[in-house]
Amino acid sequence: MQVYLDNNATTMVDPEVFKEMEPFFSTYYGNPNSLHSFGSDTHPALRKAMDQLYKGIGAKDSDDVVVTSCATESINWVIKSIYFDYILKGEKDKIITTEVEHPAVISACKFVESLGAKVIFLPVNSDGVVEIESLKEHIDDKTALVNIMWANNETGMLFPIKEAAKIAHEHGALFHTDAVQAIGKVPVDVHEVDVDFLSFSAHKFHGPKGIGGLYIKNGANLTPFMHGGEHMGGRRSGTLNVAGIVGMGKAMELAVEHLEDENRVVRRLRDRLEDEILKNSDVFVVGTKKERTPNTILVSVKGVEGEAMLWDLNQKGIAASTGSACASEDLESNPVMEAIGADAELAHTALRLSLSRFNNDEEIDYAIDAINGAIKRLRSISSTYSYAPSWHKSGL
Amino acid sequence: MQVYLDNNATTMVDPEVFKEMEPFFSTYYGNPNSLHSFGSDTHPALRKAMDQLYKGIGAKDSDDVVVTSCATESINWVIKSIYFDYILKGEKDKIITTEVEHPAVISACKFVESLGAKVIFLPVNSDGVVEIESLKEHIDDKTALVNIMWANNETGMLFPIKEAAKIAHEHGALFHTDAVQAIGKVPVDVHEVDVDFLSFSAHKFHGPKGIGGLYIKNGANLTPFMHGGEHMGGRRSGTLNVAGIVGMGKAMELAVEHLEDENRVVRRLRDRLEDEILKNSDVFVVGTKKERTPNTILVSVKGVEGEAMLWDLNQKGIAASTGSACASEDLESNPVMEAIGADAELAHTALRLSLSRFNNDEEIDYAIDAINGAIKRLRSISSTYSYAPSWHKSGL
Repeated sequence: MQVYLDNNATTMVDPEVFKEMEPFFSTYYGNPNSLHSFGSDTHPALRKAMDQLYKGIGAKDSDDVVVTSCATESINWVIKSIYFDYILKGEKDKIITTEVEHPAVISACKFVESLGAKVIFLPVNSDGVVEIESLKEHIDDKTALVNIMWANNETGMLFPIKEAAKIAHEHGALFHTDAVQAIGKVPVDVHEVDVDFLSFSAHKFHGPKGIGGLYIKNGANLTPFMHGGEHMGGRRSGTLNVAGIVGMGKAMELAVEHLEDENRVVRRLRDRLEDEILKNSDVFVVGTKKERTPNTILVSVKGVEGEAMLWDLNQKGIAASTGSACASEDLESNPVMEAIGADAELAHTALRLSLSRFNNDEEIDYAIDAINGAIKRLRSISSTYSYAPSWHKSGL
Repeated sequence: MQVYLDNNATTMVDPEVFKEMEPFFSTYYGNPNSLHSFGSDTHPALRKAMDQLYKGIGAKDSDDVVVTSCATESINWVIKSIYFDYILKGEKDKIITTEVEHPAVISACKFVESLGAKVIFLPVNSDGVVEIESLKEHIDDKTALVNIMWANNETGMLFPIKEAAKIAHEHGALFHTDAVQAIGKVPVDVHEVDVDFLSFSAHKFHGPKGIGGLYIKNGANLTPFMHGGEHMGGRRSGTLNVAGIVGMGKAMELAVEHLEDENRVVRRLRDRLEDEILKNSDVFVVGTKKERTPNTILVSVKGVEGEAMLWDLNQKGIAASTGSACASEDLESNPVMEAIGADAELAHTALRLSLSRFNNDEEIDYAIDAINGAIKRLRSISSTYSYAPSWHKSGL
């Protein structure tokens, strides 16, 4: 059996999404900006897709939703353009973010730091969540941007962004949230939270890879990141990826349609998987179930290296992650585990299980058996974990 | 009949290319960076695609070919990072480019100019080509980058980039070429020309939209444009667009395989179309056939507004362009026609016809009739062109 439990890294393109995309490769292949039918034949599908995106995140007509190539681009765009538009000009001097943001945020922030911006990386508590008090401590009227994720990619923990956005605005700062791990998992409404910018990526909600977006409240000014031929109203140049946009729109529509399922079916599967794993001793899950996206578990299994566990599960056809985000080829310890103060050994025992609406009970049963079996086997050969086999405990 | 003659704007995805891409949406959907089979199952196809890209442009193993979301990204990357790496640091102060580059180059250059870089936009001659003498006039040892396109998007004219690269290197400058309109139309070998950077875009050679690349000689240092999770060896972050990469690799392979056809079959069709159009009086084509890519005609038809011609042709199922690059929704005069010194009236009469290997003789016959018919009809209603019907000339 094949069981894919790595949906926070990427997801399967929903076959319904692919079906919508397919005609835009070799049939309706015109450039939408062209003055002929090959171009204009793509317009109804593009309009529909943009409507699906606006509706999906609760954007208004006066707002902008700009298509990018991925959330990494959206994130780079916001952080670097805030630098050019406010910090380089001397109006503001600071960006505040957190220690547990996606590498795109951390890395782009370090880049603008090297150009002279002040960047504050807020710490997180033992649940891996930033506390509002620490934001209040650091924010001032020279803060250009507060950049806090909606949900963490490793733990699934939801961040207090509504309160953070309010505090940012009280100090005249803009607020950007990386909502990559929130779309399709929890309700996302840009006006309910009152964000200025919101980044998302289609491949995290059963859309294609290579396409994402940036929400911009009220179409506010923001220096373009990709300069060029005035596509998307001059906000993001480059020939429109029609198939990608159509796919992302459909994926967004389906993500919203399935939100209730995500909270009922996926949550039930996740909780069952989590409860069964927690029956093992010396097993620790970051954060309470209620405060997380319904699909994610970041579990530390004492004495079991995350990578050893991954390979064991992979042998059984189960895909999971050690939790080092999207670029986990390097065998590093889990960055969120480190940020919450876990010791090096514990940080190396992280296992991230992330479900989707395409998982079912049979798969979860199979995964429970495989994970519990792997814990027993790997602990039995662990040099650091003294494992007492169950027959010892039961007195056999 | 539908005849697509706007291949410099975008191309049809070759059905063979689409076939290679298809499995990577909903079957092999893993994140290539993941430590499980869903991820590693994508590796053979990615390796094959990267090999196809290296081979297609003659790159060596010591070079880098980095996948981006399009040439606009590659171009923004080179120009802005040259600014950060050389100009901001004070080592160099100048970028030299031409007046007729793609809007991505012009616009990114104007952006770094606003940050303090000196930018020289070289003029072009009456064929729309930059002359080496004007480069020699402006280059000095403080020049960081010379940025000249391989072939022009409007006219198809080939630029003297081999000589330009040599001159750049003699002055310690780096050389970047936008080869978007060259790949698949003329042989492209990065070492034969000796470029430092070369940008390309899959959708211009029958690959998908939303994917492109940047060649970097010897893997030279260049500050990343998209900071983040260390994908592509840390050079370009963002989850790999597996289907896009696989498609671009196959498209590159096919582009190279079809080069001979491009020079024989497509050239023959183009020449025939051009010769027939030139039989009309007061019709002017930019540049000689030999100095152009084999697929392109930029023709000015006196007395016929480019947009009026487009609409006329569109009624007959023929797609063409007024030549304002990829973002031609705005009814502007042709920028290359302006750069070569054509008056405003002439610049508004530009019609760009760009063929591909998917055109055939029957389509060209149909297009010849339609274009010649449109010229007659539109001139007969033109307020500026006094059209003498043929029966007047023949004395009837």
